[in-house]
Amino acid sequence: MPNPTAAMLVIGDEILSGRTRDANMYFLAGELTKHGIDLREVRVVSDDAPAIEAAVKALSETFDHVFTSGGIGPTHDDITADCIARAFDDHIDIRADARALLETHYQRTGLELNAARLRMARIPDSATLIDNPVSTAPGFTIRNVHVMAGVPSVFQAMVASVLPTLTGGQPLLSQTLRIDRGEGDIAETLSGLAADFPDLTIGCYPFQINGAFGANVVVRGTDGARIDAAITRLARDTAG
Amino acid sequence: MPNPTAAMLVIGDEILSGRTRDANMYFLAGELTKHGIDLREVRVVSDDAPAIEAAVKALSETFDHVFTSGGIGPTHDDITADCIARAFDDHIDIRADARALLETHYQRTGLELNAARLRMARIPDSATLIDNPVSTAPGFTIRNVHVMAGVPSVFQAMVASVLPTLTGGQPLLSQTLRIDRGEGDIAETLSGLAADFPDLTIGCYPFQINGAFGANVVVRGTDGARIDAAITRLARDTAG
Repeated sequence: MPNPTAAMLVIGDEILSGRTRDANMYFLAGELTKHGIDLREVRVVSDDAPAIEAAVKALSETFDHVFTSGGIGPTHDDITADCIARAFDDHIDIRADARALLETHYQRTGLELNAARLRMARIPDSATLIDNPVSTAPGFTIRNVHVMAGVPSVFQAMVASVLPTLTGGQPLLSQTLRIDRGEGDIAETLSGLAADFPDLTIGCYPFQINGAFGANVVVRGTDGARIDAAITRLARDTAG
Repeated sequence: MPNPTAAMLVIGDEILSGRTRDANMYFLAGELTKHGIDLREVRVVSDDAPAIEAAVKALSETFDHVFTSGGIGPTHDDITADCIARAFDDHIDIRADARALLETHYQRTGLELNAARLRMARIPDSATLIDNPVSTAPGFTIRNVHVMAGVPSVFQAMVASVLPTLTGGQPLLSQTLRIDRGEGDIAETLSGLAADFPDLTIGCYPFQINGAFGANVVVRGTDGARIDAAITRLARDTAG
């Protein structure tokens, strides 16, 4: 059975304006690979309601799972929860279970649970809460969409809450061989290898260090013995 | 007149598998911001022909410019040029001008211009070449799509070749104010500010350092004096 597929939707102007370098994409990609879920597409959109709604709908229809990051905090630019409710035609308001979590948290910390913070309890009716052990305000799952925070420490904690609840596939394994020759010299060898190992993915990532060309060849698949066989043949065919 | 819009399409399994942390997105976002072109969306897709074709078509129809990175090297997994030719129903083959560039380059370096390397001269008929001062093999522009390499040093050089040829808008300016209070405490102030400065974008990016909460508030726009006014008011309204 093929592995489940996934897409990620990153919501936030800070990446598109070049202010912030994305960290969540890199983290999620690694975690999904270990869990045997194939991340097939990532989209980054700005804090713009029509763009968020359209992307959520399109990705939710195409892939088994969608993971979103960003836009569920207390400020005016946090519009993700409402956009997702609209995308799925669900009702959204402050929900008692989420409100109770926030009340307990803010009583303990002595901060006021004001109107802004209460916005973080806005959860669509049909959603299930995602636990947030870092800062309490929950994420949520609605249909096949997992809605999580953008702050990396919170995003990572939410991924850790969600991932064990999802049926994974076979973890994607990989081995890398560094070859100190130009890509163009090894391209034919790689084509032959890819043809003979159609169950594996052969990726070639060139680099240049001190003027010398080389490439990291990454062989990926779910069968470790096949990867071993491909790497062994590659090492032999590109030696000397 | 509003600034031109842009999207980026990153092509490559290495980001989706979590092997590589993206660098080109971050670089391009910063350059476009300086040039007054609004980056509205980024998509990352794998080395999969239908996914590449569909994304190029969709982004090309929606935005003024599309910038792609990855998949134009000499190996079997480099399928971007052919996908883009198909997306635009253009003929593609080894083109004399690109071949001449490669011939000169490989004569100088003493390496063989073999069949694999010649693939880098496959350019759609209606495309214009993009100069590559780093490693010669050119990128190309077809319609509103700029097709560039994935290796960061080459990508950056190609962006430097293309960007001066595009009409920019007003550079997007920004100022950041760090506020050592929780997001929830300043949310109402920020809503008021956003309402009174509809020409600016007010973004709030929370952080947590040694258990204390704070937020960086980023004010963006094209009018420096307005940004000054907003930041001054924000500093006053959130002081002590």
